[in-house]
Amino acid sequence: MRFAAFGEVMLRLSPPEYLLLDQTNELRMDYTGTGVNIMANLAQFGYETSLVTVLPENRLGQVAKSAIAKYGIKTDLLTFAHHHIGSYFAENGYGARPTQVTYQNRHHSSFGLSNQTAYDFEKVITSADLIQICGISLSLTDNTRDAAHALARKAAASGKKVCFDFNFRPSLNTEPNKLAFMKEQYEAILPYCDIVFGSVRDLTDLLQLEQTDTEDELILQFMETYQIDWFAGTKRFSEKTQKQQQGFLYSREEHVVSRKHELTILDRIGAGDAYAAGILTGYAESWHLKETVEFAAMNAVLAHTIHGDVPLTTKEQVLTILENPGIDLIR
Amino acid sequence: MRFAAFGEVMLRLSPPEYLLLDQTNELRMDYTGTGVNIMANLAQFGYETSLVTVLPENRLGQVAKSAIAKYGIKTDLLTFAHHHIGSYFAENGYGARPTQVTYQNRHHSSFGLSNQTAYDFEKVITSADLIQICGISLSLTDNTRDAAHALARKAAASGKKVCFDFNFRPSLNTEPNKLAFMKEQYEAILPYCDIVFGSVRDLTDLLQLEQTDTEDELILQFMETYQIDWFAGTKRFSEKTQKQQQGFLYSREEHVVSRKHELTILDRIGAGDAYAAGILTGYAESWHLKETVEFAAMNAVLAHTIHGDVPLTTKEQVLTILENPGIDLIR
Amino acid sequence: MRFAAFGEVMLRLSPPEYLLLDQTNELRMDYTGTGVNIMANLAQFGYETSLVTVLPENRLGQVAKSAIAKYGIKTDLLTFAHHHIGSYFAENGYGARPTQVTYQNRHHSSFGLSNQTAYDFEKVITSADLIQICGISLSLTDNTRDAAHALARKAAASGKKVCFDFNFRPSLNTEPNKLAFMKEQYEAILPYCDIVFGSVRDLTDLLQLEQTDTEDELILQFMETYQIDWFAGTKRFSEKTQKQQQGFLYSREEHVVSRKHELTILDRIGAGDAYAAGILTGYAESWHLKETVEFAAMNAVLAHTIHGDVPLTTKEQVLTILENPGIDLIR
Amino acid sequence: MRFAAFGEVMLRLSPPEYLLLDQTNELRMDYTGTGVNIMANLAQFGYETSLVTVLPENRLGQVAKSAIAKYGIKTDLLTFAHHHIGSYFAENGYGARPTQVTYQNRHHSSFGLSNQTAYDFEKVITSADLIQICGISLSLTDNTRDAAHALARKAAASGKKVCFDFNFRPSLNTEPNKLAFMKEQYEAILPYCDIVFGSVRDLTDLLQLEQTDTEDELILQFMETYQIDWFAGTKRFSEKTQKQQQGFLYSREEHVVSRKHELTILDRIGAGDAYAAGILTGYAESWHLKETVEFAAMNAVLAHTIHGDVPLTTKEQVLTILENPGIDLIR
Amino acid sequence: MRFAAFGEVMLRLSPPEYLLLDQTNELRMDYTGTGVNIMANLAQFGYETSLVTVLPENRLGQVAKSAIAKYGIKTDLLTFAHHHIGSYFAENGYGARPTQVTYQNRHHSSFGLSNQTAYDFEKVITSADLIQICGISLSLTDNTRDAAHALARKAAASGKKVCFDFNFRPSLNTEPNKLAFMKEQYEAILPYCDIVFGSVRDLTDLLQLEQTDTEDELILQFMETYQIDWFAGTKRFSEKTQKQQQGFLYSREEHVVSRKHELTILDRIGAGDAYAAGILTGYAESWHLKETVEFAAMNAVLAHTIHGDVPLTTKEQVLTILENPGIDLIR
Amino acid sequence: MRFAAFGEVMLRLSPPEYLLLDQTNELRMDYTGTGVNIMANLAQFGYETSLVTVLPENRLGQVAKSAIAKYGIKTDLLTFAHHHIGSYFAENGYGARPTQVTYQNRHHSSFGLSNQTAYDFEKVITSADLIQICGISLSLTDNTRDAAHALARKAAASGKKVCFDFNFRPSLNTEPNKLAFMKEQYEAILPYCDIVFGSVRDLTDLLQLEQTDTEDELILQFMETYQIDWFAGTKRFSEKTQKQQQGFLYSREEHVVSRKHELTILDRIGAGDAYAAGILTGYAESWHLKETVEFAAMNAVLAHTIHGDVPLTTKEQVLTILENPGIDLIR
Repeated sequence: MRFAAFGEVMLRLSPPEYLLLDQTNELRMDYTGTGVNIMANLAQFGYETSLVTVLPENRLGQVAKSAIAKYGIKTDLLTFAHHHIGSYFAENGYGARPTQVTYQNRHHSSFGLSNQTAYDFEKVITSADLIQICGISLSLTDNTRDAAHALARKAAASGKKVCFDFNFRPSLNTEPNKLAFMKEQYEAILPYCDIVFGSVRDLTDLLQLEQTDTEDELILQFMETYQIDWFAGTKRFSEKTQKQQQGFLYSREEHVVSRKHELTILDRIGAGDAYAAGILTGYAESWHLKETVEFAAMNAVLAHTIHGDVPLTTKEQVLTILENPGIDLIR
Repeated sequence: MRFAAFGEVMLRLSPPEYLLLDQTNELRMDYTGTGVNIMANLAQFGYETSLVTVLPENRLGQVAKSAIAKYGIKTDLLTFAHHHIGSYFAENGYGARPTQVTYQNRHHSSFGLSNQTAYDFEKVITSADLIQICGISLSLTDNTRDAAHALARKAAASGKKVCFDFNFRPSLNTEPNKLAFMKEQYEAILPYCDIVFGSVRDLTDLLQLEQTDTEDELILQFMETYQIDWFAGTKRFSEKTQKQQQGFLYSREEHVVSRKHELTILDRIGAGDAYAAGILTGYAESWHLKETVEFAAMNAVLAHTIHGDVPLTTKEQVLTILENPGIDLIR
Repeated sequence: MRFAAFGEVMLRLSPPEYLLLDQTNELRMDYTGTGVNIMANLAQFGYETSLVTVLPENRLGQVAKSAIAKYGIKTDLLTFAHHHIGSYFAENGYGARPTQVTYQNRHHSSFGLSNQTAYDFEKVITSADLIQICGISLSLTDNTRDAAHALARKAAASGKKVCFDFNFRPSLNTEPNKLAFMKEQYEAILPYCDIVFGSVRDLTDLLQLEQTDTEDELILQFMETYQIDWFAGTKRFSEKTQKQQQGFLYSREEHVVSRKHELTILDRIGAGDAYAAGILTGYAESWHLKETVEFAAMNAVLAHTIHGDVPLTTKEQVLTILENPGIDLIR
Repeated sequence: MRFAAFGEVMLRLSPPEYLLLDQTNELRMDYTGTGVNIMANLAQFGYETSLVTVLPENRLGQVAKSAIAKYGIKTDLLTFAHHHIGSYFAENGYGARPTQVTYQNRHHSSFGLSNQTAYDFEKVITSADLIQICGISLSLTDNTRDAAHALARKAAASGKKVCFDFNFRPSLNTEPNKLAFMKEQYEAILPYCDIVFGSVRDLTDLLQLEQTDTEDELILQFMETYQIDWFAGTKRFSEKTQKQQQGFLYSREEHVVSRKHELTILDRIGAGDAYAAGILTGYAESWHLKETVEFAAMNAVLAHTIHGDVPLTTKEQVLTILENPGIDLIR
Repeated sequence: MRFAAFGEVMLRLSPPEYLLLDQTNELRMDYTGTGVNIMANLAQFGYETSLVTVLPENRLGQVAKSAIAKYGIKTDLLTFAHHHIGSYFAENGYGARPTQVTYQNRHHSSFGLSNQTAYDFEKVITSADLIQICGISLSLTDNTRDAAHALARKAAASGKKVCFDFNFRPSLNTEPNKLAFMKEQYEAILPYCDIVFGSVRDLTDLLQLEQTDTEDELILQFMETYQIDWFAGTKRFSEKTQKQQQGFLYSREEHVVSRKHELTILDRIGAGDAYAAGILTGYAESWHLKETVEFAAMNAVLAHTIHGDVPLTTKEQVLTILENPGIDLIR
Repeated sequence: MRFAAFGEVMLRLSPPEYLLLDQTNELRMDYTGTGVNIMANLAQFGYETSLVTVLPENRLGQVAKSAIAKYGIKTDLLTFAHHHIGSYFAENGYGARPTQVTYQNRHHSSFGLSNQTAYDFEKVITSADLIQICGISLSLTDNTRDAAHALARKAAASGKKVCFDFNFRPSLNTEPNKLAFMKEQYEAILPYCDIVFGSVRDLTDLLQLEQTDTEDELILQFMETYQIDWFAGTKRFSEKTQKQQQGFLYSREEHVVSRKHELTILDRIGAGDAYAAGILTGYAESWHLKETVEFAAMNAVLAHTIHGDVPLTTKEQVLTILENPGIDLIR
């Protein structure tokens, strides 16, 4: 299965060794984003993957392209226009101190300024069997909204699979009527989607589905409504200072959960994308749901132990650790 | 409330990434000291703060001044004389391996060589409402002892609040008659003090107060003797390899303890100063004792998760974490 | 003399050791800008200096404030609004390879979005005897243009000295009618200015003054028209791969040039600001023109040998090197 | 007691801060190997130690020699020949992610190409009272096998103590008949050995000793057969994500175990060598078995908290921590 | 024009900031080699390029592949086998101190152990219009010699252009009869070559062509013999401590030299490959010889100012600097 | 010939990449001093060398010892007492900007507090054939003065060669009568010396020898007076921004100068010690004066191109560069 992702590439800047921005002049530069993260991970797993985005027409665009190629993602669907890349600063948390993310201008980025006319979606569709679209595009700008809808429609029309990630942040949508507007946007894209990542809260708070007796019922009803193949996500638990995580996965016939994992966290950003990449691998390989959810959950556990957003795990590594719990040295 | 602190500025040199001094040629340079730490933290909390000290009249003095200004501390009470700054090397511990501190010559530092004639204490007193004095000045040299006593006396005479930190290390005062001499020094300064940081051991071992039925009684008796407003400190507990900490705070009417916190330790030096800054904030804001001790205790917990001695927390951050326990990502 | 500067603070990001952005994940972060550079240098020279700008209301704004305080610049005229700081990436050149600067979005920065209503110019004027305004503000946005004009007018009305830096880049103003529009802007601000930094090209190409027999005549005519006290700038020469630089300085009575210096270049950005700081020092101290231009020229030579934009020279250092040419070790 | 070790020096290359090799261009270079590790630790403990190996006759050999001298190991038994040093890349694990070691060519290293004729074993024997030989030499090449056998024989013949470390990795010996061949090699060297480090599995799987009722019986039988003085090793336990370790030590009269320690792991490679150095210290000092095993076990615990393979603990440090459990700051 | 290169990928390890290997534990890791360097540079210039080589089947092979992809080189002609990559340590020189290169085992690398059966040369030939082969392959091992001859033969047979680089180092071929043997190897490959990089010394000392009146005559005779289209190379000159370089280029009709450039050297390794990439660009674009040689020479000048072996110049950058000599800042 | 040096070990702290102390938190730590530098260089040249000094009895003393061992210097003459090591901060200059050295307390260092009773000079004398004493010991403290005189006397009495380095800094000796006092000190030690490093200014300004017709005469007269074997030093010249250096060497029969070298300076501290090590090598090997002075001068040229004070050149390297002027790559 060949994959393509539509989404923003962001410049991540982080101080080293858990330092705060006031404590050092040194930053680590990485190129990330939901699309980059999932495609990079799937490329590590051996799949052909591409990224569909607009990068600035300057040194930063060139450097971002090199970074994407380094991850093994194909770069022939990239477009270059405008001069700005969205960026964020991540001050890594430690213990009780939370990770602090500070965004810089995303609305005027090359991606934010580009609508569907900036892309060759025909070529995208012939290059991939499954197309991943991140829900952030629906919130960002009119341009990105326009492009996301167009791509979902065209992909579905061509019989391609569409994978969609809710990625809805209520805190970013607090203006009056914004929620109603966003609800419409999500309702408009969901009919074209086959695999969806989200949470029960997305269904109740954003889509405002009516409460049912059980969560399972609610999810199944949602899946029926939009004819979704797979619905997946993760849950987090806290026991004192110890965080835990569990994955879930629904088809319309069956649903499963992974075992609960204790998390040791080096860098928590991007772990959700690792989970998504794991689920897509099971989908591509027609693995059983249970096998898929355990693979995805372990992949997410590992992503928490890797610096940066991009989950640089390999399929062999995930399987080895699933088979040898507690292994701490490979040579 | 405007704050000023009298105390030594030290150069801290630490290898990166938990390395030992034999393992690297690279050191991180920071300018610290009890006064710097508390004033920097209070400046982050939004207060006007100043530092009263003597720095070397050379490049190191200039660089120390820049570092102090960077923390938001006012630098107009700084004096420059002599050519040496006290320094210490900190090899950060990990797990069972303790942090190892190695001091370099402090007695001949610009601060150690300066007595009250080096300072303009009138200006200090008009610049601040509360003056913090660290007990280390009573142990260091005759000069620093002289300056500390003079400043406490003058501040009290002008109706300013004086905050004093015992900071007594028995291991540093093992010469014959040294304990008796130090007892006199502490007894001489305490009548001028309003807020005191210390422990029960300071009262029994150094001041040699008579045992009472309870610790509370002992502390209240001490507070009555010297007419202390607030007496505060922290206690540490160990459960296997897990360290815990709890703060306490006494007024002459009431006393409270904070909840017990599990510690995740990145760098333990300076956490006591964060606790002091938290208590002083409650004092400045006339918060309730309970509110104050919880704020101070959480501030100290966070200081354990920040590199270096200087607690770079903000008031909003401490309050956010108190209100959202377990939060691990802010964006 | 107390100085204040109005201008943008930018985030500069540079790879270490002459590496290209493709060659490393490591960046050095600095906070710079013409105003920062000149005020920082004057603060190093012992003057009271302030910065007048708008910083983002987030972690980056706080960190920028710390950086400014570290340079010894007063921070009480800073305002905080919006969420974006302009930034640029500098890939340091070496030999025949030029330094490559890539700007990121400056138009939507906190500074770019702020007009005169964002500032308390009354307070600015009472805080300083001379106010420095950078010509970039006239090109950036309508808001910054508005603020620059208002400040110049008010400062002149209060009898304060105004220092203005042309900083005009033809390549940034290539749209039709843009040059005519910019000419008007410059013509509108010059009547309020006392000290001006620029070049003959600014007078001929931007202001479109008529050619005269000599450059001297042209400059004097310009100075008469706008009643300018001092006009100053630098010229560059190349002899094979060796670059050279010379400063010039005009009063309405006299003009001087400095000796020609061979340049050894570590980082060429910010050297012009060092020259300006040197000239302003001579102005503040009422030095002779010749003394002033030699001081300023040597200060600029040294700025080429210091990393980053901010010239961290001291007055003693510049004078020592003027008096001991070729000195290569001070202890 | 003077010690000498025979074994390979390897170049270890590791990315900083838990990064993967794909994530950084920066590597940390260290010179390690079982012999280096044990001799360095014993030198830190105050003993005279030497290393017996062949290093490349080029810059890498010189640099390795400097590194060995820095550890306090004597370098006069080093030989220089050929041009290659064995190396390995270690990507440090974190939480569930195991440490990944990648070896580069060891067979053609200067050490691998050298047999007994490359060494002056007479001088080795007169320079040391106890000679440590690592079992890896029996697996590596015909040359190293030849040298190891010759050295053990000569040392025993001269009445020197021989310490031998099984270090057998079944996964490296999977060719047909390889196990039988290796069994012969081990059987040939054991008669010359006095102290042996290993596990029950070495006795059952490699030496193929017959099962007995208890492990103790098996070990004692093995010790009788080869007239071994001391047999020692460690066991690991896992309780959820928490690893634990315990040391054991057998003389032919008595056997003891250490208390079980919870491990906090910064770098797990080399901890076994720290355990060995601790046991050899007890042997050299004629400590009781119990005292020895506790010292060795704590030394191994500390080695897990130190970067790199080489355990840079001191005797005072180990004893201080044994006497003050939970101590986390020494000044 | 599509390019492919056949050659070894090496791991380059260099200490930072002109430090020696004894002075630091920190190394910079890069993946280089003549083939990598030329293909990376041509990819930067906008051409489709591929690398034909064998990488180790382990983490280092994966990381090397990522590095190659990052340069924009296609990775689908890469093969993975064996477990070792050739490496070298480069201690960068400064002033009178020469750069010191120390090679580690190249003969047993994955590339060194692979002969023509390891490759799919049919696919190589259909993927490229010009195939670059480095003369080092003729010296390295029997396997690489076998593969180089086979590829040259097959490429020529399919009408593809073959570019060959002498790269002959007499110092590496000092065994008796080695020169005669190498002469045969070069004579065997040259009939298949169209573009050749070398020097007059290669023709006289290695091929032992008879002296002629002029160098030009000798070169033309050589070109006639083997029906070479273009023969190119560079010459170095020294004037005191200032190094200079000049390029030359011969077709069978015409020959040209570039202007002489003064060199400012940051890292001299790889500059020859930049020159080759420049010449191949002129060949691909059918530029005039003079235009080609000036472009190539400036590209080589710039490569001296870039860290590492890989010339990360762009076509625009080279042309801009040719058109604006002395330019030192681009924004 | 076996060498020993008596002198202070200092901790050198320098910011990376020509940064100022205000610009970075990162420092490079090195252990240096005239004695360390010369002994390290002679150890690199293959001689047995020792250091005679007192180091602090703490972690810094241990780390200094490791650093000294790493240079190949024997550590068995080291003594440990007191708790302070002298240190200095070096901000590396660039172009016109001079290197700035800032000393921290040297008078109270372990070395400064130790007189002859701290050393076992008998052992020193039996361990070495030539003993190097640095003139700084005569200026530092009464203790170091006492030790230096005692050692010189005892060494001469035992027939050992004494090498003495003037190292007199007028600027450090400006108190009244200080010059007269220092003159006595130098006059007292010179009768025991065989090889002396210094300048004509040392003879005229410090020893106040009467002017003679020529410098040669003056030097010869000085050598006769004290029966000096060899007198050596260097001279510096400036031609615009280009520095040059030339070595001179006198025996009582003959005198020579080296060729004049253009200097490319990476780090100028320690170059004089490299010159001294070169001269001592010629003395040890009984080379001709001319051969010796050229070797020493080239060694000093190379020391300018190496970071830090310690000249890590090898004999082969110096000879190779003397024989191949302009060589810029060795492989």
